[in-house]
Amino acid sequence: METINVHTREHAQLIDITREIQELLSKSNMTTGILNVFVPHTTAGITINESADPSVAYDILAVLDRLVPWREPYYQHREGNTASHVKASLVGSSVRVIVEDGGMKLGTWQGIFLCEFDGPRTRKVHVAFQSN
Amino acid sequence: METINVHTREHAQLIDITREIQELLSKSNMTTGILNVFVPHTTAGITINESADPSVAYDILAVLDRLVPWREPYYQHREGNTASHVKASLVGSSVRVIVEDGGMKLGTWQGIFLCEFDGPRTRKVHVAFQSN
Amino acid sequence: METINVHTREHAQLIDITREIQELLSKSNMTTGILNVFVPHTTAGITINESADPSVAYDILAVLDRLVPWREPYYQHREGNTASHVKASLVGSSVRVIVEDGGMKLGTWQGIFLCEFDGPRTRKVHVAFQSN
Repeated sequence: METINVHTREHAQLIDITREIQELLSKSNMTTGILNVFVPHTTAGITINESADPSVAYDILAVLDRLVPWREPYYQHREGNTASHVKASLVGSSVRVIVEDGGMKLGTWQGIFLCEFDGPRTRKVHVAFQSN
Repeated sequence: METINVHTREHAQLIDITREIQELLSKSNMTTGILNVFVPHTTAGITINESADPSVAYDILAVLDRLVPWREPYYQHREGNTASHVKASLVGSSVRVIVEDGGMKLGTWQGIFLCEFDGPRTRKVHVAFQSN
Repeated sequence: METINVHTREHAQLIDITREIQELLSKSNMTTGILNVFVPHTTAGITINESADPSVAYDILAVLDRLVPWREPYYQHREGNTASHVKASLVGSSVRVIVEDGGMKLGTWQGIFLCEFDGPRTRKVHVAFQSN
């Protein structure tokens, strides 16, 4: 297992970590298998979506903000960051990518994003390789 | 890794691909392990839900349409398909199924669905087997 | 593969199953690898979120109830539990955790939760170990 540290700068932000993960994959010498990306936090998530146009990440965050507003009178959690926990469960804590010939079998437009929902913070991302 | 091509016919559609995946599993000769299903697209997803009654798939699409409307004045992405990107991240890009005795350990009502959110198109679905 | 039976007591409930999974992991003698947790039901899910403060689980359920109301005139599924199927696909049917030195590499606040969306029922949770 390898761990990446990601410094987020906004309260809510999608950060493309595809390049960092590809670098870890190259160092691992794995040619065929599955790569697992896991975030050990409860107010952040991991997703795969379009990396070419940054407006996609912007829109994903905007829709999530409308679906799960920051303040609601019925929230019970006293820390005040209920919305970030809910978004984490909607998006999920991990993604997997198939590896062949040493490369990730991502689609043309796909990138891997750390989803910061309660930043700015320093986040950890764990990456584990399963060789075939 | 194997790849299935799926031709979708609607703008939004859930297509049951359980049988195609079971056929690939049978050809793979894997008896015990994990099967990974991955969609290399950013406006489509993969989910596991009820395959017996088609009204469940219909309702899932209807709820997603209400949660993430096709047009909103605040969307920034110029291609106009923001909603399909958001739905892809809500549903996720992959599922995994446990395999024992050469069969998928799905529940009685579970099927694997490709989620088309911006069709009709021809979509690819990657399937990777991890033998124990 | 191992299977846990979980008895849920509410119509909607998040049940922390981290301890039960850790016990299965200890019995498995796996020291390094990936642990897969899968729910073979279409009206229940699995998520990873905060286990320290129970109000987080309460709020996740409350937000999901508002996003996907129990009754809507446009639902087609005659069994009347459309909302639980939709929530299952939003949250997902499985999670994975990296294992090192015989322990799950969960974050400080993370726990694994069975998400009951149409209880009370007895639910099965499958756990599969992939040793490195």
